Amino acid sequence: MVNALTTNAPSGGIEFHNVQISDPKDFEVKLKPLYTGICGTDRGEVHGNLSFAYNHPGYNFLVLGHEAVCQVIDAQENEYGIKTGDYVVPVVRRPGECVNCRIGREDNCSDGKKNEAGITGLHGFMRDYFFDMPENLVKVNDRSMVREAVLTEPAKNVMKAFEVFDTVSRRSIFQNKDSTFIGKNCLIIGSGSEAFLYSMMANEYRFNVYMTNRHSLEESKLSILEKTGSIFFDYTSGIPLKGIDLLIDTSGDPATIFRFVRTMNNNGVAILFGTKGNAPGTQVNGEDIDYIIERNISMVGSVDGSKKHYLDALRYIEKWNHAHNSVIGDLITGTYSPENTEIFLKKPEGEIKSIIKW
Amino acid sequence: MVNALTTNAPSGGIEFHNVQISDPKDFEVKLKPLYTGICGTDRGEVHGNLSFAYNHPGYNFLVLGHEAVCQVIDAQENEYGIKTGDYVVPVVRRPGECVNCRIGREDNCSDGKKNEAGITGLHGFMRDYFFDMPENLVKVNDRSMVREAVLTEPAKNVMKAFEVFDTVSRRSIFQNKDSTFIGKNCLIIGSGSEAFLYSMMANEYRFNVYMTNRHSLEESKLSILEKTGSIFFDYTSGIPLKGIDLLIDTSGDPATIFRFVRTMNNNGVAILFGTKGNAPGTQVNGEDIDYIIERNISMVGSVDGSKKHYLDALRYIEKWNHAHNSVIGDLITGTYSPENTEIFLKKPEGEIKSIIKW
Amino acid sequence: MVNALTTNAPSGGIEFHNVQISDPKDFEVKLKPLYTGICGTDRGEVHGNLSFAYNHPGYNFLVLGHEAVCQVIDAQENEYGIKTGDYVVPVVRRPGECVNCRIGREDNCSDGKKNEAGITGLHGFMRDYFFDMPENLVKVNDRSMVREAVLTEPAKNVMKAFEVFDTVSRRSIFQNKDSTFIGKNCLIIGSGSEAFLYSMMANEYRFNVYMTNRHSLEESKLSILEKTGSIFFDYTSGIPLKGIDLLIDTSGDPATIFRFVRTMNNNGVAILFGTKGNAPGTQVNGEDIDYIIERNISMVGSVDGSKKHYLDALRYIEKWNHAHNSVIGDLITGTYSPENTEIFLKKPEGEIKSIIKW
Amino acid sequence: MVNALTTNAPSGGIEFHNVQISDPKDFEVKLKPLYTGICGTDRGEVHGNLSFAYNHPGYNFLVLGHEAVCQVIDAQENEYGIKTGDYVVPVVRRPGECVNCRIGREDNCSDGKKNEAGITGLHGFMRDYFFDMPENLVKVNDRSMVREAVLTEPAKNVMKAFEVFDTVSRRSIFQNKDSTFIGKNCLIIGSGSEAFLYSMMANEYRFNVYMTNRHSLEESKLSILEKTGSIFFDYTSGIPLKGIDLLIDTSGDPATIFRFVRTMNNNGVAILFGTKGNAPGTQVNGEDIDYIIERNISMVGSVDGSKKHYLDALRYIEKWNHAHNSVIGDLITGTYSPENTEIFLKKPEGEIKSIIKW
Repeated sequence: MVNALTTNAPSGGIEFHNVQISDPKDFEVKLKPLYTGICGTDRGEVHGNLSFAYNHPGYNFLVLGHEAVCQVIDAQENEYGIKTGDYVVPVVRRPGECVNCRIGREDNCSDGKKNEAGITGLHGFMRDYFFDMPENLVKVNDRSMVREAVLTEPAKNVMKAFEVFDTVSRRSIFQNKDSTFIGKNCLIIGSGSEAFLYSMMANEYRFNVYMTNRHSLEESKLSILEKTGSIFFDYTSGIPLKGIDLLIDTSGDPATIFRFVRTMNNNGVAILFGTKGNAPGTQVNGEDIDYIIERNISMVGSVDGSKKHYLDALRYIEKWNHAHNSVIGDLITGTYSPENTEIFLKKPEGEIKSIIKW
Repeated sequence: MVNALTTNAPSGGIEFHNVQISDPKDFEVKLKPLYTGICGTDRGEVHGNLSFAYNHPGYNFLVLGHEAVCQVIDAQENEYGIKTGDYVVPVVRRPGECVNCRIGREDNCSDGKKNEAGITGLHGFMRDYFFDMPENLVKVNDRSMVREAVLTEPAKNVMKAFEVFDTVSRRSIFQNKDSTFIGKNCLIIGSGSEAFLYSMMANEYRFNVYMTNRHSLEESKLSILEKTGSIFFDYTSGIPLKGIDLLIDTSGDPATIFRFVRTMNNNGVAILFGTKGNAPGTQVNGEDIDYIIERNISMVGSVDGSKKHYLDALRYIEKWNHAHNSVIGDLITGTYSPENTEIFLKKPEGEIKSIIKW
Repeated sequence: MVNALTTNAPSGGIEFHNVQISDPKDFEVKLKPLYTGICGTDRGEVHGNLSFAYNHPGYNFLVLGHEAVCQVIDAQENEYGIKTGDYVVPVVRRPGECVNCRIGREDNCSDGKKNEAGITGLHGFMRDYFFDMPENLVKVNDRSMVREAVLTEPAKNVMKAFEVFDTVSRRSIFQNKDSTFIGKNCLIIGSGSEAFLYSMMANEYRFNVYMTNRHSLEESKLSILEKTGSIFFDYTSGIPLKGIDLLIDTSGDPATIFRFVRTMNNNGVAILFGTKGNAPGTQVNGEDIDYIIERNISMVGSVDGSKKHYLDALRYIEKWNHAHNSVIGDLITGTYSPENTEIFLKKPEGEIKSIIKW
Repeated sequence: MVNALTTNAPSGGIEFHNVQISDPKDFEVKLKPLYTGICGTDRGEVHGNLSFAYNHPGYNFLVLGHEAVCQVIDAQENEYGIKTGDYVVPVVRRPGECVNCRIGREDNCSDGKKNEAGITGLHGFMRDYFFDMPENLVKVNDRSMVREAVLTEPAKNVMKAFEVFDTVSRRSIFQNKDSTFIGKNCLIIGSGSEAFLYSMMANEYRFNVYMTNRHSLEESKLSILEKTGSIFFDYTSGIPLKGIDLLIDTSGDPATIFRFVRTMNNNGVAILFGTKGNAPGTQVNGEDIDYIIERNISMVGSVDGSKKHYLDALRYIEKWNHAHNSVIGDLITGTYSPENTEIFLKKPEGEIKSIIKW
């Protein structure tokens, strides 16, 4: 018996209670979650809005949680060097049999037959302890960053998206004639935790980094952008930049996406990342298609990330926290106890990332 | 004075008459067009539908024509080995100063400051003779293919588009677990000359190749597809394929594009190529964006091609004509004289490619 | 019992005799070889010079042969569409469990645990019939090319090598400022069948193609090069080209390789393909290393090819045979019966490719 | 008149004296060097060992120095945002006209017609002040890192080399089946400043990082490796690792390079970086070539880096200094005054990087 935060996928609900979960026989590492993050996907499941979510086979519930940092309570000896006492981040997706899954790229799963912990058919990490295989764990080496490491999971999506950008942008010379990205514009749509992480990575590339939304931004959030040298604007009040080279959407809103695609520069790349299945439609017409073609623009969806992206994400989280005056810590706007299930039902004011302390 | 087919860009009109054009001083090669192809762009200009077209500076008209095969009438000695008597295809785009233009990739022009012969500010090839620089000419080595070589210009777009596909599809493992494309589906929207050329290239990759349109196809066109092993279907009567891996649009119609994007497989690539500025809009909603993201789908515009793509195009035109029983010759459905300007005003029945013999 | 050409690997010998081979239970396709090619590897095994060769487990002999074109005698229904009566080329390498093997790239095997038919632990194709899995067979569609298709296996190495060139050369802009390879020099060391196939592929890229050896070339071979527009020179009598952009070695001779590496252009790529384990050593000194570094030169080994390269090889063999006046047929300089085992012991005068008709 | 450290290239010598240098008319930024680094190239020039070095045209001397961090004394307004008071690193190579130079990749210069400050035909940075164009300057944003930033120039070589590795290694799946580099071995030959910088970058990739030389290492150097988790071994006393995936040579010694190439794993990449023109030769024989081919090994030269690599280098220098307890500061083992020209003649005991304070 273990205390866990569960839902009944896909219909929804949230409960913190004591449940019986059989430990898989061959899972060699016992883990205690220290912090788990809450994101839109968790809330979507609790509200019953994610039709693709489903319970763990053999159970009439699903343990929630895919963003976690854990401590190893007990580990058999293994080739991955995972030892008792280590701090680790467990990966979310578990591979199927397709050509991408078999090389550790289940983020690019070809046939959809992967599982996602806490989302599709696999119990998640929001429980007092669980078991896992050592190959699914990524070590946190900097012990001063254990709490911040809860952002590894969302940050790994950013790493994957920039890998996609790197590949796709090779279709032409994207850089300036001095070989750098200096002076190129990156616009990020949305102002949630992912948007902030995207802004920091764009900053690494030396883009001029802009973030936008359809409303003004709280002072606390503006001060985070200031730390990293990014600029926010409310696009309902005017658009201060001319020409977008890299567009990153975290909103999932078609109208906003195409509003900005129509201002992209030649050879521009748009990364579609945010999803909002119930977002209203927008008109896309012949001139829009023409615009995309004549400018050799690429619009590419990007989901999830592989183990290598978790490793990269950890490196950057550590780097950014140092370089930008504890900016990663600033992204964690609230810490809650598992009993406080209200947090799944209503997003707190000014939230960037809410986390649960176990 | 030279006989030429001209329009007044962008307002339109078509005239075959004797005009005065000053020969550029440093253009070293005198060329006589043998065949010039007519495409939707030419007709768009004649009808005044292409707002971006403009006359050659210093003239109140624009010589039409960007698809041509010519004979060299007179050539100064040059490092490109272009000699009197050679058959050549002139390239359309002429570079500006941007980072892509300066490496011969004006098809990827970063700032839009290129010119296009017969379209934007540069007299085209539909005249008794003209002058050009040797670096703008691509030799036709197989003299039995001079007439078919008029398809080099449209085919170079296909080469570029597949180069883009090659680059973009590298974001994951696109091939099967046996390293090939066997069993993957390519759908081509549209049934014009470009669509046929795309189908042959997809065939080279060993895709299952499908072509579709909103009507049935003439017997003569079906027999061309039969030669190359491709399948046509009228999508208003049902869709016989399940899952698209490579989608190529030559229609420019947003509704048709998104209809099929919604049936793409994971890691699928959609090449947007056809333009139709006045095509009506279609609704794109949150679920569409979600679909693209969850499957790591890429939608990429592709325009024009560089000199290397003209060379590749010629190679494949020669190959396909041999391998598929003169299939390239079949694409030329009508040969007209320059006096017959009607051909610019109305598309003949069953046209794939109409050409003018000079 | 089946008639087969066998050796005793790695000690050597050659015998044509009736042997007992148990058919693997799950091999669904029965094949009759029509032609098998003989190459240096076969002769190396027969002479006992290939220390890495070994017999099929459970046998005290190894059936020779890895270059073959076969007819399907009997086939169970399969997802690969292999049917009775089809002409097919069987692939040589069979995958192990490594990360490359599991995506059909056993040519890039990471741990060496693959098998090679007729070479390492797997009976080859020089026998009256054998059984195989349909996924290991590549169809020959053009029935007028069945004999020439025996060159598919060597040609697939060429396809792989150019894939490697494509990848490696992307480290800088390799093309000219007009985006093409025109004017770039490719030198191929050696004048065996692989050298000719390499010269044709280099020709496709529009390189100036040179072939060299330490002796003059027979008229018959020179006329083959003439068909494809390539130039031969005897390097002991002087070197007519200045600067090599792509160097391809089929000799395996270190002294010759480094002689020409020392004349490579900036950003040049050297493909090492030919092996000759007992070739004498050559001195490589600090200036050679310096030369490679200062010019950003790449020297890359390339072995074997995957199923996709067999498909590409077939396409090009068909194309070249047509485009260059039956040039592929010219490469087959002798046809022998399996009884004639002498052919394994002594290379006939003027041989490019000797084949056995079954 | 300006105080400068000069040599007479290529014959050699070293002098610190007052010389007359005409300022180029269009160089808009006046710079005062704060620190300049000394490397093997400088000493090679002073000893007259670099035959390719030559004086600045119009002068009978060459100002030395290509590793520098400077302060802007005076700047005209410019599009690069370089302002008076900024700390900057000047780039070494200045582009010619080739296809790589024209896109800011003079590190990949195709025709060798670039210049290198302090080495080939362009006065270097070892003088009281000099003038430069703003596009040649890279800003140091972290003012606490000005002294450490003198390592930007050597570190940019490391960035370029890993870019080359990234490109070349794409020829197969280099990563493990979990998508990471964990467990792969990187061996760095040599123990100079570049070797340490390479070790830190290999560490970022999560390689097991080894450094080797033909002697034991001073305690002070071992403690630097300890900070970054790398392991040193004296290869004359035994080799503790089995199989190299990435080999990086900073020695330029052919015998050592090939000793370790012979132990590389399948798909291994060897980066040749260190040059030592007078290094004695080593025998490379047929078996070595065979080894490289059968394992698909790549040996690639890598020289210099572009402006984008200077930017990346600065990022990593800042990151490593933080993450590894001021490890970059540890690399600077001695600070000298310009008058102390002895430092060019004899390498101090235990030197990693000696710098001059201006």
